[in-house]
Amino acid sequence: MDYFSTRRSVRKYKKADTLPQQKLEEILTRAMQAPNTGNMQLYSVVVTRSAEGKAALAPAHFGQPAVEGCEVLLTVCVDVNRFSRWCRLRGATSDGLNNFQAFAYAMIDACIFAQQIVTIAELEGYGTCYMGTTTYNAPQIAEVLHLPAGVIPVATVTVGTPDETPAVSERLPLEGVMHIEKYHDYTDADIERIYAPKEELDVNRRFVEINGKDTLAQVFADIRYTKADNEHFSRVLYDFIRAHGFPMPDEANN
Amino acid sequence: MDYFSTRRSVRKYKKADTLPQQKLEEILTRAMQAPNTGNMQLYSVVVTRSAEGKAALAPAHFGQPAVEGCEVLLTVCVDVNRFSRWCRLRGATSDGLNNFQAFAYAMIDACIFAQQIVTIAELEGYGTCYMGTTTYNAPQIAEVLHLPAGVIPVATVTVGTPDETPAVSERLPLEGVMHIEKYHDYTDADIERIYAPKEELDVNRRFVEINGKDTLAQVFADIRYTKADNEHFSRVLYDFIRAHGFPMPDEANN
Repeated sequence: MDYFSTRRSVRKYKKADTLPQQKLEEILTRAMQAPNTGNMQLYSVVVTRSAEGKAALAPAHFGQPAVEGCEVLLTVCVDVNRFSRWCRLRGATSDGLNNFQAFAYAMIDACIFAQQIVTIAELEGYGTCYMGTTTYNAPQIAEVLHLPAGVIPVATVTVGTPDETPAVSERLPLEGVMHIEKYHDYTDADIERIYAPKEELDVNRRFVEINGKDTLAQVFADIRYTKADNEHFSRVLYDFIRAHGFPMPDEANN
Repeated sequence: MDYFSTRRSVRKYKKADTLPQQKLEEILTRAMQAPNTGNMQLYSVVVTRSAEGKAALAPAHFGQPAVEGCEVLLTVCVDVNRFSRWCRLRGATSDGLNNFQAFAYAMIDACIFAQQIVTIAELEGYGTCYMGTTTYNAPQIAEVLHLPAGVIPVATVTVGTPDETPAVSERLPLEGVMHIEKYHDYTDADIERIYAPKEELDVNRRFVEINGKDTLAQVFADIRYTKADNEHFSRVLYDFIRAHGFPMPDEANN
């Protein structure tokens, strides 16, 4: 079976020491060879292995059990602090990366690094799961992990030995995601065709029923990822980024 | 040899048809199984194979030869347009994702998807390279590719059969990137130790000399990624994102 086609995120892990520090470091070292912008490596990873460390981070991840249940929790961060300090020590402009563009490309690099860790760990037989709560509660995570200005958490990955085998999760048909030469905007008929297989799955039908909604889209929009939550956490993330080392252009120009 | 430890980006490709559409679709389909936020798949990929299409995109990538020299150029985009249209068609709030938080998690998902494409393509023997120019010139790319509001290009990957074997590029020692339990900010001595191996490499010494600088950090800060450029392209990206479907919190609350 092809690993890539059959991979699934794992949220439940065996209570066992299966990922010694040396093995973890080997995985991280291999993952660092992933591409990055200008080889500046504008990222860091904080390794949380202690029960106290996980407990301190758990509330920021809304108590998702994988945080305390995993063997190792990895918080991958945008990091322009290290590079800026190097610049300062070497007679170079050290405040060239405190801006939205550098944040954007550092974020891309941090995500590429995170995904490379996930792939390598899963190929080694470990299970992993991203905690999507990282961008929601970045300020709390930064406080717990002592992240200085210029360091923003963007992806958290739990790692351990799987204690469950979830079903491979369904995806849209490729035609729904791929555009040839130009983006061809979707007609209603396209949307119907693309989303029908997903809506017809038993698991998703039940999901709609349990949530007392008429459609799967309503479950997402009214319950799982609401406008009110997204707007609240937009404000939190936006304010945090600009206060924590990356002023937005309007402020930078004042 | 371990693929992950020895991978390198490839910018020069054979002039040959080695990546038929069916093979590409197989790679993209496998890559879609990468993790993503809530299985919303808030990304799209635009496939550019035609010479005209590549030529139209080349200026946005500052004429980097890989753009016209590759077989297939993939522009991976944040995409909340498709999901919002689905919501509209299904009686759900369709404007819940037009905000900075949704942009952030869609960007993470788009980067994870892009990196999964890179890994699978490289394991299949293709060479790839990210074009870091995507976040610089997102507005032009959006125009060329007809991206509607809610669709922002974040990563461009060139793919083809390698016609060069570049050296594996050096990385910082892991201790420079990894923090245990808490972020431990760097002392000057840490920075010296972490960056010394990079600075001492012949290729980097020559790079400093050719550029008429005293230190490698100055080459980055004064020539490659300048404060002035970063601030200019911060403004461009920030204005584009907020005008193209993702108003910033200050605007959204007005």
